[in-house]
Formats: sequence, structure tokens, C-alpha cells
Amino acid sequence: MEHEMNYAAEEIEEMLSAKRYRELKNIFSSMEPADIALVFEDVPDAQLPLLFRILPKDMAAEVFVEMDNDGQELLIAAFSDRELKEVLDEMYLDDTVDIIEEMPASVVKRILRQADPETRRQINEILQYPDDSAGSIMTIEYVSLKADMTVDDAFTRIRRTGEDKETIYTCYVTDKDRHLIGVVSVRTLLLADPADQIREIMETNLTYATTLEDKEDVAQKFSKYDYLALPVVDQEKRLVGIVTIDDAMDVLQEENTEDIEMMAAITPTDKPYMKTGVFETWKKRIPWLLLLMISATFTGAIITHYEAALGAYVVLTAFIPMLMDTGGNAGGQASVSIIRGLALNEIEYSDTPKIIGKEALVALACGLTLAGANFLKMMLIDRIAPLTALVVCLTLIVSVLAAKIVGCTLPIAAKRIGFDPAVMASPFITTIVDAISLVVYFQIATHLLHIG
Amino acid sequence: MEHEMNYAAEEIEEMLSAKRYRELKNIFSSMEPADIALVFEDVPDAQLPLLFRILPKDMAAEVFVEMDNDGQELLIAAFSDRELKEVLDEMYLDDTVDIIEEMPASVVKRILRQADPETRRQINEILQYPDDSAGSIMTIEYVSLKADMTVDDAFTRIRRTGEDKETIYTCYVTDKDRHLIGVVSVRTLLLADPADQIREIMETNLTYATTLEDKEDVAQKFSKYDYLALPVVDQEKRLVGIVTIDDAMDVLQEENTEDIEMMAAITPTDKPYMKTGVFETWKKRIPWLLLLMISATFTGAIITHYEAALGAYVVLTAFIPMLMDTGGNAGGQASVSIIRGLALNEIEYSDTPKIIGKEALVALACGLTLAGANFLKMMLIDRIAPLTALVVCLTLIVSVLAAKIVGCTLPIAAKRIGFDPAVMASPFITTIVDAISLVVYFQIATHLLHIG
Repeated sequence: MEHEMNYAAEEIEEMLSAKRYRELKNIFSSMEPADIALVFEDVPDAQLPLLFRILPKDMAAEVFVEMDNDGQELLIAAFSDRELKEVLDEMYLDDTVDIIEEMPASVVKRILRQADPETRRQINEILQYPDDSAGSIMTIEYVSLKADMTVDDAFTRIRRTGEDKETIYTCYVTDKDRHLIGVVSVRTLLLADPADQIREIMETNLTYATTLEDKEDVAQKFSKYDYLALPVVDQEKRLVGIVTIDDAMDVLQEENTEDIEMMAAITPTDKPYMKTGVFETWKKRIPWLLLLMISATFTGAIITHYEAALGAYVVLTAFIPMLMDTGGNAGGQASVSIIRGLALNEIEYSDTPKIIGKEALVALACGLTLAGANFLKMMLIDRIAPLTALVVCLTLIVSVLAAKIVGCTLPIAAKRIGFDPAVMASPFITTIVDAISLVVYFQIATHLLHIG
Repeated sequence: MEHEMNYAAEEIEEMLSAKRYRELKNIFSSMEPADIALVFEDVPDAQLPLLFRILPKDMAAEVFVEMDNDGQELLIAAFSDRELKEVLDEMYLDDTVDIIEEMPASVVKRILRQADPETRRQINEILQYPDDSAGSIMTIEYVSLKADMTVDDAFTRIRRTGEDKETIYTCYVTDKDRHLIGVVSVRTLLLADPADQIREIMETNLTYATTLEDKEDVAQKFSKYDYLALPVVDQEKRLVGIVTIDDAMDVLQEENTEDIEMMAAITPTDKPYMKTGVFETWKKRIPWLLLLMISATFTGAIITHYEAALGAYVVLTAFIPMLMDTGGNAGGQASVSIIRGLALNEIEYSDTPKIIGKEALVALACGLTLAGANFLKMMLIDRIAPLTALVVCLTLIVSVLAAKIVGCTLPIAAKRIGFDPAVMASPFITTIVDAISLVVYFQIATHLLHIG
């Protein structure tokens, strides 16, 4: 539905072979950097440096930032020192740091050699923050103002220094020791009198993040409070950087992907599916499959224990899959609801008793519905003995109840002891609930059917 | 870690009973509207109108927008017509529309009666867009400029009209027929010469959404291109509104929650977990549990079919849970990887053969690892007959292969025929894979063990 200016890699390659450079340059200047980067991923490696050099000068750095790491590494290897410096000079510092974090040591050294000493110092500082901290995603390129400036002074300063800043729309007011004392938006500046002092119009009721705060918590603040940028302060409350909303949005999307992968028993990585090789995919999945397989053998032990009962009533075996699946599904529903509620900060520890009460009621309602439907089916369609049907239906009620209680409590418990609640999703819940369902099933069966 | 200015509902209630209104007002003015709204949710209904009236005038509308629907409805009922009009006048139009969409008809009528005719017309227009369209989340309060204005003119216009606009940082340039012809950011305006004409500095290479475009696709564009706002045009390419990044972020979070719920076989709603009652929760979960339970009974039929074999080899029963769970987990991993890749637009239809090839290889690697580990365990720990162990391990390999292929193809197929791929997650895959695993199991068993 949008302005259609996207070309396939084949067309681009064709123009390149035909040396239609000017045409290519025109096409590139009408495209979004993110779309150019996507085309570049599909172009043969050998042509990439040439194509990159055709890009309009003012777009080169933006396209470079949007490319995948393999492409970036390839280009850096092809760049002359001067070219590398040109691209680096145009990049925002937080993007440079992102790239450095993914490059092999030799490439990092070369990048740092091209940076001026001040930038090098700043890069090294950001690199020291842990991977999941606000410090690691912040940029230090913000507009800072002083409280005694006038609005007019502020605009002069923004005009003079704004070119290199990641955002100019929120400006930060610091005292002489770099402590954050206020925030003022360009909107406020524009609507104010040019002679007003910044101290009169700045917002002093501040929200900020600290360098070591979890980046996911910081990102959640953006979605809760609708900020465009959030200041980051160090332990001494000095302003050291800002996080912008585009980076916060990326963090949210990454965390969502991570949660979803963990819920499906996959070790999360930030590599897209199509870029992950067979071996890597195997490595992300096999530990969980192994662990869950071994846990599931305990369920087998339960069956072995009741082998005599099963030998006498082979018909009981036919309901094992249905009971196991239903228990797993019921538990999975509860656990995923809680995991998502925790991730969105909608659920607190103090809600636990309320949650268990609610899940118990929902479980009873679900269990009774399922048991009723199943009893009718067993009587009217399968024509099973009523006592056997009763055993199955009672098991359904008890195991749905157990599944929902286990499903809602384990994620909260996991979070409490410092684990990611997303681990406690369907696969683990299923394994635990399977064992419970089977024990309940055989207990009820041995009592009602007088086996053993 | 942030400025701690949040009070519990109990403290607020206490101050209210003690009539410490001035103190309350001070506290509120130091809090974020979103946090005040959270406190208001925990306050007894009867006190809500009084508390709301204590709010500083300039925050009232913001807090109102952040509240849940029950609280909003309660307040509207308590408002005088004048109070209602005051709050509505301060709200952005897209927020008003959001609230109207959730209110009963009688309340909607009262709201519309308080709006002036032009606003009423605009509200009715936005209400006509489908729920999941760009039109439904856009705001019509943007800054529009003309191409022949100077930068100075533009600033005059922004200063005059900017107060009521949701964002002033991106301004939209339209011709006399309201066609969108350019976009210019305040940043560009600030860095330009005051005498420059807008037409010289505006960006004419435009990305936009159309009113009927899926809001999720629009939100994805924000995360891909790092926009702060995106213009929305009608079928005749006339500018009708803009979508801002805060709304795009909300859409992304909602869609993520929806996907996660569907993956766990829950009917998605946009109500938070703690606000959903027992009956509503039951209604979201029971249809899927019923459907999956009935599907699982087919698996039971397979077991019944091989009853004779099981009667002869009861030991085979003990491995059914492990085989079913492992198949389900393996299939779930594949399906969730694909569902997420599709949601993030990382995967296209044309990738299908590549995906199946990769999943087949990963499945073989996983199957062999699992079979190897299991064979060792069965020989060394369980001391099972080698032939029985062989049956179980061969089944593992085949069912993991089948699970991964089913798991990766069904979400793509679902999307192709217009369904949400998230439906094809673990619960459905498990049900299908269970049946496959059991047939494979009994087929291999009857052949290798010469049963039947």
C-alpha cells in the first residue's frame, strides 16, 4: 500500500553489471535505508563493496547500521581506513557500540583505531555496561542545556549542536557537576517566550533510568508513559546518556521474541530464523528436548507401576493421550496467562492468593464442562461402561484443577527465585501435569474398579 | 530505581478521609498520570469522583485517558455535563475514540452530545474504520503546512496551532486538495534558514499508510524504519490523519499478547489478566480445551485399534507419554519459530522449501541425539529388551521428524489461507503429532516384535 520503490536484488545486480551507476544512485536515494540493507543481504558478497560505494554519501552510514553483521564485517574488510572513518563519523555512538559488540576482536581494533580519542573513550565506557542494562542501549549524543539559558540561547545551542544528536526534541538541563536537574521539550521551547529562562519552563519532576537498570524495565516505561526519550544517570545521579524510543521498541520486540522462544522450550538468541544454521538451531533446541524427554520417563515409571491394573483393564490405556493432552493444555493456558501478565507488569506477587483462587474456580468450571461433554460422548458414541466413564471424567476434573494450579503458581515461583517465568510454560507444565494426571487416573481406577 | 513518588491506594484514601485535599493535590502533581490511574483503580468506587476532582486541572484529562474502562464509565456517570465537556476538550481525538469504542451506547450518546459538531463529525468518521485498521488508531490532530510557506511562517503556525496537536515534531505538507506532498521535521526546520521555503527543504520521498491498512503492519513499519509518526491517507491519497509511535508501540504489545495467547489456545482479548472475571476466563479457554479434547480422542481410537498388541506387550504402554511429549515439544519448537518469524516479517512464502529442508535436517539431528540418549538409558538403567528399546528409539526419530515438518508447514499454510498462524502452535501440533507418533510406534512394534 505504500510508495512502491523497492527493487529486488536481481534487478540491482543487473544494473550493476550494466554499469548503470547513476541510475542505481537515484534508485537508492528514493529508498529507505532499511530496505536498501535488505536488498544488500541478497546480493553476492563480491558486489557488496561496489554497491555500497554507489550509495549517496548521506545515506551510507544509515544503510550500514541497518545491515546484518556478516555484511558489515565484509564491508569493513573492504573499506580503506579513510572510508571506515567516514562511515564511523556519520554513525550515532550507540549504533557503533552495537556493531562493535558483534564483531571479532581484530575488526574491533580496527574500528577503535579510526575513532578519535574522545569517541574511543566513550565507546569503551558503554562497552563496560552489562548486555541487558540501560547503559548498553543508551546514546551519549543528547542536547544538554543550562538552567540560566534563555529559550533563545537554547535554540542557538540546538541549532549549533543538534546536527549530531540522536534526538533534539527532548533537551536535558544539568548543573555544573553534570547532575540532571530538569528536562525541557522542543515543544515547550517553541511555545515559550524567547526571553524565558530555561529554569522557569523546565520539567523538574523527573523520571530516569540508571545505567545498570534492566533494559526491559526501561523499555516498559516507554510503553507505559509514552516518552520519546528517557535520561540515564549513574550512581551519583550524573547524566551519562539517554535512551530513545526506537531503541526501546527494539528491546521490547527482542524480549517478546525471547519470551515466546522460551515458552516453546527453545534457547533464545537474537538471530532471525532464516539466518540461523542447522547446527545452531539444533543447539538451541536439543538441551530442552533431552531434559523434557528424561522428565517424561518418570511418567513412564508411573505406568509401569500400575501395569497390573492396565493389564486387567486395557481399555484404560485408550484414554491416556486425551487425559495427558487436556491436562497439558489446561495448565499451559494458565501458565502463559500468568507469564504474560508478569512480563507486562500487570501481576504482582501480592496477587498470588487471588490468582490461585481464580484459577481454581476457572479450573472447576472447565473441568466440569469437559467431564460432562466427555461423559455424554462416552455413553452415547463410544458406549463405554458407565463406571469406566466415571473414572475418566473424575480424572479430567481433578487433573484440570491440578494443571491450572501448577500452571499459575510455577511462573510466579520462578520469578520469585530469580528465574525467567517464561521457562515455566507449556512444555514443563505438561511434563509435571502428565505425571499428576496419571497418578490420579490410576488411583481413581483402582478404587472404583476394584483392581489390584 | 526511579524518582519514588508513588503512593498506595490506602495512603491516598486515608488522606482523603482526613480531608487533606491540598496535600493530595501536591502529591498528584508530582506523579505520572499513568501511575495515578493505577492508584485510582484500587480506590473504592464511591471515592473516585471526589479524588478525580482534586486532580490538578491540567492533569485530569491525561489521568482519565490512562484509567480502565470501568473507572471511566463510573466517572462519566458522576460528571456534570460541564465537567464532561472540560475533560473531553482536553483529550486528543484518538483517545476519545478509543474510549467511545468501549462504552455502552447511552454513555456514547452523552459524550457525543458534549462534543462540538465538527469534533462529532470527526469522531463518527474514525469510528467507521474497522477495528484493526490504521484509520482506527490514527489521530487527526497534526500540524499541516503549505509548500509556499517559509520556515519562519511554519514556526508561526506551529506556535499558533501546536498546543492541541498530538505531535508537532513531524509536520505534513499538503496541496490545496489536501493531497500529501511532503513531510518536514521540526529538526529540519530548526536547522534551516528562516527564509527558506518549505518546498525546498521538505522530504518528498514519502512513506505512508492507508486508512484501511492493517494496524499491525503499520506498527511494524515504525519498528523497521524508526519513525516517530506516519501519515495516513485515504483512497484518493488525501491526508486524513497520522499514527504516532506511542500508539504503534501499544499495537505491537497488544499483537504480541494476542499471539502468545493464541499459541496457548486461549481466545485473545485486550483485557488484562487481573481484570478478567472467572466466567470470562472460562469463556476464553473452554472452546479450545473442548476442541482439543475431542481431537485427542482420535488418538485414543488408535490405541484401541492396537489393543491386542498392547495386551501382549504391556511394557509398550510405559513409553507412550514420553513419545507423545517429545513429539509435541519438537513440533512446538518448529511451529513457534515459524510463527514468530512470520509475525516479524522475517519469513516469506518463498522460503517454504528452504524451511522444510532445514527443519528436516534439524529434526534428524535432534531425533538421533534423543534416540541415542534414550537407547543408552534403556539399556543401562531400565534394562529393557534391546528389541523393545529399538522400537522406541526408531519411533523417536520418525516422530520428531514428522513433528518438525508438521510444525513448520502448518503455520505457513494457515497464513496462506488467511488464518492467524499463531493458532498452529503447540496445542494443535501436539494433537496431530500424538496421532502420528502412536501410529508409527505401533507399526514399528508390530513389525519388529512380530505381534498381531
